[in-house]
Amino acid sequence: MAQKPQKNVLATGSMPSFTGSRKVYETQDELRVPAREISLEGGSGTHRVYDPSGPENLDIHKGLPPLRQPWIDARRARGDRNFSQMHYARKGEITEEMRFVALRESMTPEFVMAEVASGRAIIPANIYHPEVEPMIIGRNFLVKVNANIGNSATTSVIEEEVEKLHWAVHWGADTVMDLSTGQEIHETREFILRNSPVPIGTVPVYQALQKVGGSPEDLNFDVFMETLEEQARQGVDYFTIHSGVRLPYVPLTAKRVTGIVSRGGAIMAKWCLAHHTENFLYTRFEEICDLMKQYDVSFSLGDGLRPGSIADANDEAQFAELRTLGELTQIAWKHDIQTMIEGPGHVPMHKIKENVDLQMEICHEAPFYTLGPLVTDIAPGYDHITSAIGAAMIGWYGTAMLCYVTPKEHLGLPNRDDVREGVVTYKIAAHAADVAKGHPGAQAWDDELSKARFEFRWRDQFALALDPDRAQAFHDETLPQDGAKVAHFCSMCGPQFCSMKITQDVRDYAREQGLETTEALEAGMAEKAKEFQSGGGEIYRPAN
Amino acid sequence: MAQKPQKNVLATGSMPSFTGSRKVYETQDELRVPAREISLEGGSGTHRVYDPSGPENLDIHKGLPPLRQPWIDARRARGDRNFSQMHYARKGEITEEMRFVALRESMTPEFVMAEVASGRAIIPANIYHPEVEPMIIGRNFLVKVNANIGNSATTSVIEEEVEKLHWAVHWGADTVMDLSTGQEIHETREFILRNSPVPIGTVPVYQALQKVGGSPEDLNFDVFMETLEEQARQGVDYFTIHSGVRLPYVPLTAKRVTGIVSRGGAIMAKWCLAHHTENFLYTRFEEICDLMKQYDVSFSLGDGLRPGSIADANDEAQFAELRTLGELTQIAWKHDIQTMIEGPGHVPMHKIKENVDLQMEICHEAPFYTLGPLVTDIAPGYDHITSAIGAAMIGWYGTAMLCYVTPKEHLGLPNRDDVREGVVTYKIAAHAADVAKGHPGAQAWDDELSKARFEFRWRDQFALALDPDRAQAFHDETLPQDGAKVAHFCSMCGPQFCSMKITQDVRDYAREQGLETTEALEAGMAEKAKEFQSGGGEIYRPAN
Repeated sequence: MAQKPQKNVLATGSMPSFTGSRKVYETQDELRVPAREISLEGGSGTHRVYDPSGPENLDIHKGLPPLRQPWIDARRARGDRNFSQMHYARKGEITEEMRFVALRESMTPEFVMAEVASGRAIIPANIYHPEVEPMIIGRNFLVKVNANIGNSATTSVIEEEVEKLHWAVHWGADTVMDLSTGQEIHETREFILRNSPVPIGTVPVYQALQKVGGSPEDLNFDVFMETLEEQARQGVDYFTIHSGVRLPYVPLTAKRVTGIVSRGGAIMAKWCLAHHTENFLYTRFEEICDLMKQYDVSFSLGDGLRPGSIADANDEAQFAELRTLGELTQIAWKHDIQTMIEGPGHVPMHKIKENVDLQMEICHEAPFYTLGPLVTDIAPGYDHITSAIGAAMIGWYGTAMLCYVTPKEHLGLPNRDDVREGVVTYKIAAHAADVAKGHPGAQAWDDELSKARFEFRWRDQFALALDPDRAQAFHDETLPQDGAKVAHFCSMCGPQFCSMKITQDVRDYAREQGLETTEALEAGMAEKAKEFQSGGGEIYRPAN
Repeated sequence: MAQKPQKNVLATGSMPSFTGSRKVYETQDELRVPAREISLEGGSGTHRVYDPSGPENLDIHKGLPPLRQPWIDARRARGDRNFSQMHYARKGEITEEMRFVALRESMTPEFVMAEVASGRAIIPANIYHPEVEPMIIGRNFLVKVNANIGNSATTSVIEEEVEKLHWAVHWGADTVMDLSTGQEIHETREFILRNSPVPIGTVPVYQALQKVGGSPEDLNFDVFMETLEEQARQGVDYFTIHSGVRLPYVPLTAKRVTGIVSRGGAIMAKWCLAHHTENFLYTRFEEICDLMKQYDVSFSLGDGLRPGSIADANDEAQFAELRTLGELTQIAWKHDIQTMIEGPGHVPMHKIKENVDLQMEICHEAPFYTLGPLVTDIAPGYDHITSAIGAAMIGWYGTAMLCYVTPKEHLGLPNRDDVREGVVTYKIAAHAADVAKGHPGAQAWDDELSKARFEFRWRDQFALALDPDRAQAFHDETLPQDGAKVAHFCSMCGPQFCSMKITQDVRDYAREQGLETTEALEAGMAEKAKEFQSGGGEIYRPAN
């Protein structure tokens, strides 16, 4: 494999609410790839982490700088017609987006290109969304997190949605789906796109349904295509399209405990049944492909028949649809369209792995993108947790992106706090998956924090935390004094019972005795150890 | 196997803050086994769940009724010397505690006896803790949750600790460990024991250390035994004892990122090193056994060398100690002493299963009792979540009891809210494990809630939730109106986009068309399905 590219680092200002962090840019030629650099009082001095939060100090009416514009213009100038990153990758062309991603993920551009060419990874980046900082979704890269935002029919405050977007990326969301269904759906989306440093996904059938007055049976292919075009031209980076909800699968859901729980899936199922006709998103899939490639919109093939309860997990309806998604993946790839596959939902732990194994086999290793899954249904109000358990596991097994779930799932619309709670919880799941997969460098973050903990560097612990503010606030609750931030003990055990303090004492004691290194320590123990062994080794000898 | 016992049900009053629930007692002869019965507006009408919360309307100065007293008195009257449940089980005697547990877990008393006799399960129940409602810890029973409480050297408010105890069992803690280290340690423990319906565990070395003025090197066997006796006479049900921290293992921790993080482990390591002598808790283990059996105190063999960071997981020190714990288990069993084994701690996902497999093999299937484990170290402030991921998995793999972690872990002392958050989070992990293990009846709870969800029975959803108050509060935030509790849609999607509503419409539509059952529905589809198959089956046909 080719060598990793040389890079330099450009520092900018500190980051609000990431105490101890500053934004830096790793640069190479014209590329400026963002990262968050955590300054430490001890340990390695600094620790740099992936940062999707985008540029700061924004005027939402001006939008973000269109960093990709020159690259896109150059492709247009030479007369390209298929703008998909997969198309370029398959021709052997390393795009600026691939180089950007390579730098961001510490991989080589060649590896990125190969992964995109094979379909194992996607770089969602609509040519009309030049503001996006390119990122990659694939199981050989860092596990990504998606956050859903969007107003509903009743509320519609655009500023609020843009604020949620920024809040989500601030805490680490890698992509954001705009699920708005309100009156100002087009304008809301425009503000979101112009202000988003991360790829934006949508479910176009929501708007199409609105255009026909809300009755699924009145939907038709033309209004759907018109909607796709409208959204593609705005710059949406990936579309969730429920082409796998085929007419013959609908009856398979009849005996389910929770039927069809995907909104898009339910809409298309109703259409199919009302017309007793096959889903037009399936029969006319290739026409959709023709549109997508002109913009490089990626497919997120929707799991319209995903289980809505653990009772319905891994059933015939779910897996029948998955097989169709595999079939459609190959059609999409015929057009060089980047494609990922959506997955469940609600799945008990022992049935999670089968989902990933089947998806990889049936969908030819296209990236898997799952919602949770929730591993139990009994905890509404805590579904960020029930689902983080499943998300961490499914990420470990090979899922490329995890769609977050907030504490309000099943109960209400998430507010700012819920978005923060949901994103941080999912960053935990994604990072735990990276560590379990042995992703290069992932565990270094854990180790840096653990060293700070062991050395009582409280401020470094806070700075290295996924949520520094909360870590410090919790510490302040019991020991608010400034001195406590440098104390060699904490509130939980007090100085006398602090195991870490005692361990330090043990090490100091050993040093005083001339047992400076492990080897010396072991040597010092050898005599005792020999005694035990000559006395019967591990066999216990009664004391009396 | 023998038949399950017949039981009747006695109902009592409603339960504060479990809206929609009342406490019931399943009765059989003299036994009264508590349960929580959830009343439903639809579905099965009622759903009964395990309930460790104990009697209500307490006067903490009077304590709980000593329900086991007559059973214990009868054993004393006949001159028993070894009061251990394992001792009786091995003699083939089914105790009242075993019958109680059998009723509580819907198993036969014979099965309970066999599990206790084999050492695969324990019923922690000190004869001086007659207030305890017997419960069982073993991997063939429901996964249990332990909550830690306890004041530290600086704060000491007994009422506050008793309140935390009740708060913990209210939310579902199955055992509680009193980790107090303050001045009024004896009196605090007395109040906790007299008011606890669940087994109480302690780490006696904390008090022993206090008795010698706080210097680990001044500890000795006599003061330790005196402490054991004092606590056993008060009624402590299980002791965490760090007999596995052997002198030759201490140097194995020298190169660790976080050394020794167990308080008891660190204390004993320091003692060993200071005296260059083997741990007296190891060399004089059999004398400890002699004391334990007179009270039926169970061993919780402490993992003093557990990893304190994922970097240290599954290392030589940890597994060396585990081998010693296996050795000690067999000594304890020689005395018919009930024994469980404590486990980590901090373990990345891919290293969790090895912990359970090794523990089962080395410790001869004695119940495993783990703290978390946390699957990543980067999220202080959210460690209930990082650890619930590991806890759910390790429970699925066969761990019998999970020690909770609160959001304050590593940062400060948990308050009331943290205890609630920690316990509910761990009830999620334990239940998810029960479901994944296929524990009989576990999934029925999920299914009941999912049915309520699908049928828009909002009040039933709240009542069935692990935390009804929070579920309702979250729903109220967006739709506080009373009408919304019976609405056939919710705030997330509104009426037009509600997948569940559409699914109902789909089913209604099918019924109108004369497709009343799945079979009819499938028949109605058959024609269409045939068309697809004759057209090439699953092979996609382009639209043009």
